[in-house]
Amino acid sequence: MSESHNRRIVLAARPKGLPSPANFRIEETAIPEPGDGQILLRILYLSLDPYMRGRMDDAESYALPVELGGVMEGGTVAKVVESRHPGFSPGEIVLSHSGWQSWAISDGTGLRKLDPAAAPVSTALGVLGMPGFTAYAGLLSIGQPKPGETVVVAAASGPVGSAVGQIARIKGARAVGILGGPGKLAFVRDELEFDAVIDHRAEDFEAQLKQACPAGVDIYFENVGGRVWDAVLPLLNDHARIPVCGLISQYNQSGPFPGPDRLPLVMRKILTKSLTVRGFIQREFVDQRPAFYAQMAAWIAAGRVRYREDIVDGLDKAPEAFIGMLQGHNFGKLVVRVSPE
Amino acid sequence: MSESHNRRIVLAARPKGLPSPANFRIEETAIPEPGDGQILLRILYLSLDPYMRGRMDDAESYALPVELGGVMEGGTVAKVVESRHPGFSPGEIVLSHSGWQSWAISDGTGLRKLDPAAAPVSTALGVLGMPGFTAYAGLLSIGQPKPGETVVVAAASGPVGSAVGQIARIKGARAVGILGGPGKLAFVRDELEFDAVIDHRAEDFEAQLKQACPAGVDIYFENVGGRVWDAVLPLLNDHARIPVCGLISQYNQSGPFPGPDRLPLVMRKILTKSLTVRGFIQREFVDQRPAFYAQMAAWIAAGRVRYREDIVDGLDKAPEAFIGMLQGHNFGKLVVRVSPE
Repeated sequence: MSESHNRRIVLAARPKGLPSPANFRIEETAIPEPGDGQILLRILYLSLDPYMRGRMDDAESYALPVELGGVMEGGTVAKVVESRHPGFSPGEIVLSHSGWQSWAISDGTGLRKLDPAAAPVSTALGVLGMPGFTAYAGLLSIGQPKPGETVVVAAASGPVGSAVGQIARIKGARAVGILGGPGKLAFVRDELEFDAVIDHRAEDFEAQLKQACPAGVDIYFENVGGRVWDAVLPLLNDHARIPVCGLISQYNQSGPFPGPDRLPLVMRKILTKSLTVRGFIQREFVDQRPAFYAQMAAWIAAGRVRYREDIVDGLDKAPEAFIGMLQGHNFGKLVVRVSPE
Repeated sequence: MSESHNRRIVLAARPKGLPSPANFRIEETAIPEPGDGQILLRILYLSLDPYMRGRMDDAESYALPVELGGVMEGGTVAKVVESRHPGFSPGEIVLSHSGWQSWAISDGTGLRKLDPAAAPVSTALGVLGMPGFTAYAGLLSIGQPKPGETVVVAAASGPVGSAVGQIARIKGARAVGILGGPGKLAFVRDELEFDAVIDHRAEDFEAQLKQACPAGVDIYFENVGGRVWDAVLPLLNDHARIPVCGLISQYNQSGPFPGPDRLPLVMRKILTKSLTVRGFIQREFVDQRPAFYAQMAAWIAAGRVRYREDIVDGLDKAPEAFIGMLQGHNFGKLVVRVSPE
């Protein structure tokens, strides 16, 4: 890892389907110089998240796509190395959105200072950051779990799903997790203490899910789409709520999708069960962030919310790790260590 | 119309697809005798509504299906002919749920007395009844129209759609109606004063709809499904709300539906636009009924809400009229005059 240059990973070509290493390109440039009112950041950690797949397409979305040749977008934890800004001092650690690179300039906009004594700073990208807040806001504001209700979440060992299930349990609901692989299953069952955990790779997955939800499903926190959605749909109770947070199973697909057409039956279910299906992005709920930071830190301190990080060393490994994540190969919040703290 | 017998229409066979007259059977029985605490009702008006198609199937729904050989379900306006109940006197007019028949017994449960001086009593089945309340509750509680927003509703000359558009305008929103046929179009444009009206039978329907919604669609009140849904979907704005009230275009279809599978693109739209898709049935909002009765009566009195009834004479005509309604042949709230007032 060169300290004399800025290394950055840019979008070399838009992927069709699953991205490949050829969609990315590593570039070296000079380390930028901060101007007046600016700070120079050395990136410590880069967050890799499923939403980034959407930014690689030029389809219409809630966010602009990454430009071809542009630095891949992403949340980062960084150290202030040089400051020409009155609000920041060298040595401070901040949460920034500097993307897939090792150095960055900021004018301070949108930065949040982190306290390394309070929690490992990498958690600002996970359980105490965007994924944790996504779980918190989506589950509590849209899902609105009540004691005794059943909450189902897929990708249950990931940063969003693991928080969804644990917060559901704190609110008195039953948490049923879906995931892929025996290691993840044991973790979510034994460490996170979900009420039931199911491997979607099991041949009798649908039957296991039904058995795990004897009183039906009141909240399905949608991270994945596809086969999991199909299995949950017949189990939904009247007035079930479905916060739609992600659809990772279909990010690498493009239409037209082969039949049969599932939409008429889904719409009929929405009608006859008075379902609420609500897409969201966490920044809609920005007003709740201060409450989240305080509440989640307290839950972690009390051992009521646990988390797992999957840390990959070196920015060069980001494309491979990202591609693996889209296939479920990560185990916990996927973070790239760009530079030692 | 025999006054010496009760005539009733029962479900003779469950339909596959569009019902036919053979799915119904007319029976004659003795006029029932009221017991202690009961009243005898002579039915004046029977409401015909799209939801009844669902009751003819034995598929799972929010309501039990009509039994084979059972009287078809339906809302009715009736006159008290004989009373052995302290709360009712002969000559009073009530809203009841007596079904497709000419006489009925009631113990008073669920009856609502109507004031013939306040409004034509048939409106208790339409604009001042379940359809009007469906529009009111779905639009205001789920749709939540704001001034300047665009509200799209199909079946816009029908009892629900016509109220949706007019209430939207009262709330300062733009109302765009979709319907089939030039007579209905002129009525909704000239009498109901929607901001735009489009015939879904037009070859360039999608283009016309887009032109009628230059600022996109904030609320799509879903009555129909099918082609209208497909045309509205690309026009939906961020945070658009979709109260799902009915899906008349698919009530006569059963799966599997031929591809392509439209669900993945709809889910992607829900996610990326932060859409709310919310199925409902008006009785969820029962607490709002008193406010509705007062508000809607005031709007009608002020000429701010207008309505149209399509009255068919004779209970025997109910099956044919119902089948026609499922094909869009009615023009206004479809009501059967079972007996003269």
